[in-house]
Amino acid sequence: MAKRRLVVIGGDATGMSAASQARRLKDPDELEIIAFERGHFTSYSACGIPYWVGGTVDGPDALIARTPQEHRKRSIDLRMRTEVTELDLDRQQVRTRDLESPSATERWTGFDDLVIATGARPLRPPLPGIDAPGVHGVQSLDDGQALLDALSAAESSAQEGDARRAVVIGAGSVGVEMAEALVRRGYQVTVVDQAEQPMTTLDPDMGRLVYEAMCGLGIHTVRGVAVTEIRTGSDGRVCAVATEDAEYPADIVVLGLGVRPETTLAQQAGLPLGASGGLLTDLSMRVRGQQHIWAGGDCVEVLDLVSGRTRHIALGTHANKHGQVIGSGVGGGYATFPGVVGTAVSKVCDLEIARTGVLEEQAREVGYQFVTATIESTSRAGYYPGAYPMWVKMIAERRTGRLLGVQIVGREGAGKRVDIAAVALTAGMTVEQMTALDLGYSPPFSPVWDPVLVAARKAAAEVSRDAAGQR
Amino acid sequence: MAKRRLVVIGGDATGMSAASQARRLKDPDELEIIAFERGHFTSYSACGIPYWVGGTVDGPDALIARTPQEHRKRSIDLRMRTEVTELDLDRQQVRTRDLESPSATERWTGFDDLVIATGARPLRPPLPGIDAPGVHGVQSLDDGQALLDALSAAESSAQEGDARRAVVIGAGSVGVEMAEALVRRGYQVTVVDQAEQPMTTLDPDMGRLVYEAMCGLGIHTVRGVAVTEIRTGSDGRVCAVATEDAEYPADIVVLGLGVRPETTLAQQAGLPLGASGGLLTDLSMRVRGQQHIWAGGDCVEVLDLVSGRTRHIALGTHANKHGQVIGSGVGGGYATFPGVVGTAVSKVCDLEIARTGVLEEQAREVGYQFVTATIESTSRAGYYPGAYPMWVKMIAERRTGRLLGVQIVGREGAGKRVDIAAVALTAGMTVEQMTALDLGYSPPFSPVWDPVLVAARKAAAEVSRDAAGQR
Repeated sequence: MAKRRLVVIGGDATGMSAASQARRLKDPDELEIIAFERGHFTSYSACGIPYWVGGTVDGPDALIARTPQEHRKRSIDLRMRTEVTELDLDRQQVRTRDLESPSATERWTGFDDLVIATGARPLRPPLPGIDAPGVHGVQSLDDGQALLDALSAAESSAQEGDARRAVVIGAGSVGVEMAEALVRRGYQVTVVDQAEQPMTTLDPDMGRLVYEAMCGLGIHTVRGVAVTEIRTGSDGRVCAVATEDAEYPADIVVLGLGVRPETTLAQQAGLPLGASGGLLTDLSMRVRGQQHIWAGGDCVEVLDLVSGRTRHIALGTHANKHGQVIGSGVGGGYATFPGVVGTAVSKVCDLEIARTGVLEEQAREVGYQFVTATIESTSRAGYYPGAYPMWVKMIAERRTGRLLGVQIVGREGAGKRVDIAAVALTAGMTVEQMTALDLGYSPPFSPVWDPVLVAARKAAAEVSRDAAGQR
Repeated sequence: MAKRRLVVIGGDATGMSAASQARRLKDPDELEIIAFERGHFTSYSACGIPYWVGGTVDGPDALIARTPQEHRKRSIDLRMRTEVTELDLDRQQVRTRDLESPSATERWTGFDDLVIATGARPLRPPLPGIDAPGVHGVQSLDDGQALLDALSAAESSAQEGDARRAVVIGAGSVGVEMAEALVRRGYQVTVVDQAEQPMTTLDPDMGRLVYEAMCGLGIHTVRGVAVTEIRTGSDGRVCAVATEDAEYPADIVVLGLGVRPETTLAQQAGLPLGASGGLLTDLSMRVRGQQHIWAGGDCVEVLDLVSGRTRHIALGTHANKHGQVIGSGVGGGYATFPGVVGTAVSKVCDLEIARTGVLEEQAREVGYQFVTATIESTSRAGYYPGAYPMWVKMIAERRTGRLLGVQIVGREGAGKRVDIAAVALTAGMTVEQMTALDLGYSPPFSPVWDPVLVAARKAAAEVSRDAAGQR
């Protein structure tokens, strides 16, 4: 059999997991692997950036799972600072540009299999001042390094006692994590969001609990207000963030507005994209309609098993699984990525925030009718030290009682309880079935009725009540 | 309709949950409820006793979910210090004795429905000296109070600098929890167990990790050795625990040998018992063959959904669910307890220990053939502070790859991950299906591959490897 060549675009989670898994299954004399990465880093945890910026973890080295050298040792021909500028699917080749060479040399490289793992780009609304020095995204390690350099420069030039002020635009997971990071660095932090509550990944009633907790942490939140301009001073640097009727002074601005799939190349090549702009794939992570073009990670849409629709979810854990599945496929094995249930967990200081399944609005959008139940309980037996309050909201389908979603807000021990619901969603359980789940109990770990069981009981009662009164 | 009478034997979790739930569904003019409790306390958390003894929680009040007065306010005629001495099923009546009355008055009380919630009694092997002062069980709040009184008396009479020594017989969950409690009170603790490793609720390889950790905590463990005698001093009090070839001085001895169902009354009445001596019930928690006799909690056997057999598991969380199901049934509703998957979680100091499903030996016993996979990972992203090592062992059926059991040993954040496996077992998932679970990920909560996913991947690979080589 002739030697084949795998080309990988993007040297982070999906790309390098795919390359590594393919290498495990195929020797270099059967499969050549070339990977192109336009940045300075490979295989890193972008999710760790807020903790690096906040000084909780060291970086950037600690965030790097595998260096270029380590990949090369495993016979992966990794070319750093090399950008792919065009895909030619007919001729099965990609055009690349060497970003380090002064002449920006371009060349074509052929492939038998191609992995598109181009990731995502942070949303940058077309506001006046958005490109001013002092405005930072936090998508890549390069972004993180730039932000840290800016913070260090500002901090070293500041006078003793100077108040340092930061504005975070957007209060999603990354926004609140960056707010925590900046608080840890001693900044006065204002978070501005268009939505009425932080964490639009939660229903408003649960998001409100997060907002209250953020206030308690000294984070100033401005809600339901759009940013109109990022103002710069006479030095050209950012000095404030303006809304319709207010202005918030800022030495630094962090964009936490979420990300969009980076699929410019794929779009130019005519590959199928979903509503979010993410690539559409089949279960084996092949791009739909393609036999040898694979895609995964932050540049694809994934099937949401609860809503039945594809959507864009940028999350390292999915990206790694995608890489694993692609590498198996390229290597001649069989693996699939069946989809997600929409699980996410994050924290802001001591507060843990988690969700899985659909929110009320998402449920409505796809045609579900449902009941909800929200309970307050504690993460441990009420009498055990560290038994903090936690809230669980459960959404269940009318009539069938099938679990549709769970949201959790609490403190230590609250967040990862979302996994119980994630497995139950995957298994298609009803809330009534969940009331009998045999969950781990002893006083340091749970009340005798785990909060998830309490929520399931209430939700099951709501399903019955609704059924009794339904038309 | 004539007013009916429910009689409840045992005023703890099952009995009082059943009474409360029945009362929610039926008014006093429809249903009279009489409950007999021979002890001094109702509705308490026996699982909290080790933490009360260790001084981590206050007691006994904090451990009591509902006092006799609170129950009586809800029209439950609760009679404390009243022992039921005989069941007459033909005449539908129970004979009781008032333990506080000098003449120990006996009387008969008729019932329409009867709940047997007599709990369990600690194993007390027939060793010389087992009944000596200073030897304590820890089954009931009364036991806990007696142990605390003894500890306080010993501590106040001790000279400054005296070493206080305790021996715990049995290294199951209660044994290791009591070892921690006594360490916290400043005792030199020796744990003696017949098994070669502590926690026979784990496989030997995982139990060994617990043993090593206990050594690290300064707890002396003596393994694979049977206690032959409990020696007493000239004052008649316990002074040492003897094995075949050694003697361990002890000011106090705690029995942590597990419990047996307390079903003397039920047996005398000819009700059906399982191999452990626990009552056998149907899904509605009616005693098998009976329409109006119900039983639940520590005095029954439960269906283990993984092994397909009934077994005795004394655990407050099951007892509460049983009470809920019984109360619904007595009140004219419909509820079932479908069974357990064998989940348990406990801790000894910082070490968290959890299991669900079957152990290797249990799997073999019921005819399963299986593969196993054990992995070491961390509870959080490796670079995040507090990322402690944790071990996950997974047992999967040959050919089908169905999950059969999971055991976890680790530190903060490790134990409750067992819930993921508990739900997967309930849903009958294969380890291959588990590799795609959408579990909550962010660096403070999990590595990008949750340890449970890592174990599932390895187990799935073992299933394939086995299938490739199988006859």
